[in-house]
Amino acid sequence: MNAIGVDIGGTKIAAAVVTPEGNISSEVRYPTQAAPANRLIETVAQAITEVKDGFEVSGVCVAVPGRILASENKVISAPNLHEIEDIRLDEEIGRRTGLMVTVENDANAAAWGEFRFGAGRGLQHMVSITLGTGVGGGIITHGMLLRGAQGAGGELGHVTIDPTGPRCGCGNYGCLEALASGTAIQRRAREVANERSTSALGRLAIERQVLGEDVTRLAQEEDDASISVLEETGRWLGIGLAGFVNTFNPEVIAVGGGASQAGELILESARKEVQLRASSPSRDLVEIKEATLGPESGVLGAAALAGSEDRESVS
Amino acid sequence: MNAIGVDIGGTKIAAAVVTPEGNISSEVRYPTQAAPANRLIETVAQAITEVKDGFEVSGVCVAVPGRILASENKVISAPNLHEIEDIRLDEEIGRRTGLMVTVENDANAAAWGEFRFGAGRGLQHMVSITLGTGVGGGIITHGMLLRGAQGAGGELGHVTIDPTGPRCGCGNYGCLEALASGTAIQRRAREVANERSTSALGRLAIERQVLGEDVTRLAQEEDDASISVLEETGRWLGIGLAGFVNTFNPEVIAVGGGASQAGELILESARKEVQLRASSPSRDLVEIKEATLGPESGVLGAAALAGSEDRESVS
Repeated sequence: MNAIGVDIGGTKIAAAVVTPEGNISSEVRYPTQAAPANRLIETVAQAITEVKDGFEVSGVCVAVPGRILASENKVISAPNLHEIEDIRLDEEIGRRTGLMVTVENDANAAAWGEFRFGAGRGLQHMVSITLGTGVGGGIITHGMLLRGAQGAGGELGHVTIDPTGPRCGCGNYGCLEALASGTAIQRRAREVANERSTSALGRLAIERQVLGEDVTRLAQEEDDASISVLEETGRWLGIGLAGFVNTFNPEVIAVGGGASQAGELILESARKEVQLRASSPSRDLVEIKEATLGPESGVLGAAALAGSEDRESVS
Repeated sequence: MNAIGVDIGGTKIAAAVVTPEGNISSEVRYPTQAAPANRLIETVAQAITEVKDGFEVSGVCVAVPGRILASENKVISAPNLHEIEDIRLDEEIGRRTGLMVTVENDANAAAWGEFRFGAGRGLQHMVSITLGTGVGGGIITHGMLLRGAQGAGGELGHVTIDPTGPRCGCGNYGCLEALASGTAIQRRAREVANERSTSALGRLAIERQVLGEDVTRLAQEEDDASISVLEETGRWLGIGLAGFVNTFNPEVIAVGGGASQAGELILESARKEVQLRASSPSRDLVEIKEATLGPESGVLGAAALAGSEDRESVS
């Protein structure tokens, strides 16, 4: 049966009616506003009601960028959406829409989307990494989404890969997120631009703030300084991935998110690092590749989770 | 029904008939000899035949210290047992004993033992760490042993926690194993003994080679140098565990193995590091404690896996 997936992002709220085959029948988007919880919940409920119009749906799953407590369908900590912390979203949104609502971490939903309809289709063991402002993670093992005891598992961006590394948004030092996210790319680009001020990267940095997409574009234009920024990011990513390869013995690692637009510029050095650091047979099996669904992975995965019996296995 | 668990260790081969409740009805042990594969397999088969005498059993699971390829019941790489690499142990041992034989990694078997009958009894989400000469890992998530696509998953000892750290036996640098194993304790003890030659640890190191158990004993006698060795080991362990907490959101992390005899001397600083580095709600839930089954965890877990339908889920 159709289900509704909602993806609450930093800039937009997307809601879609999705068929069991992963096709989007209807979709709406609203901008995410810094607003009181009540207002945000109203917007989500309105998006759901609007997108549902004329469709029969089995339920709704709302993907949220934060740590969730699955048993209570509650967000424990959402750095960009403080307002909705500690609110039972299932009840609040369910009451306004008359639908069954569950809550999921956004990276877990994106992972489930890629697993069901994208890079992991037909497989049983997949790790999904989302390189955006932060680094999100999701794990599918033996065909199942790894949520852990409270639904807070899969936080692969917050695994320490360099104990004395840069401070991470989570308070820890040297997390994968602190070394391989879009934010890390920007920080590294500033450093390299300073050291190599005559490179294209260096020259741009004198004019204005360098964004992650600038680094990708300049690297594609063969600016060595920009290439080195992405290669180093790939090495750090690979250090993390090597551990995931040994831990999960996955068939595929799918890398998505905005910063993954650098594609092979990052993935090639990540793969080299994995070959150096991971062990056989896992390192020989794993395929490290780009995610295929783009920004729709969140709504697709959320909808598939809303319609999935698997969702009920959360303890 | 009863099943037989076999645990092939570096020094001994243990085989036991185990009841479904986890009681050992009969057990035999043979020394592990550096012998051709054929000889080792004969010894294992003999141990099985001997221990089986008078019991009805559903099957055998053999736990091996190495990377396995579960689909073929084959050992891919066993640093201490090169001879049995690439041999189909299910067929070789099955033919000699007339029993259904499967193969499992030893740390996974130990994890399953602790999960079913020990520190994880009654839970659904557990991480097991074995601190011995190396560091073994096993993961139970949503009540299931995480084996991965080839049965080679759960290698938590080979997650990089310090990219420029000491060389590991696996060829990588800065693995958890290279920093928190019994071997790492011995290396660190040598270094600290050199720096602090008037400490009890330093004085002992002048007389003879210091073993891990010496460090534990001296630390229990309040030798500061030895305490610092174990505390630093605990900090490195904690860096790894913090990542596992964020990844698996487990209810319990059970730490066993020979080097875990240092107990609280290591675990207390590991817990502190986890509190610093892991995030809520996972870090608030997890209990980090000693494993309870001791060296029998391997045969108990192997037997439970032999008798478990779950074993069939390996793809």
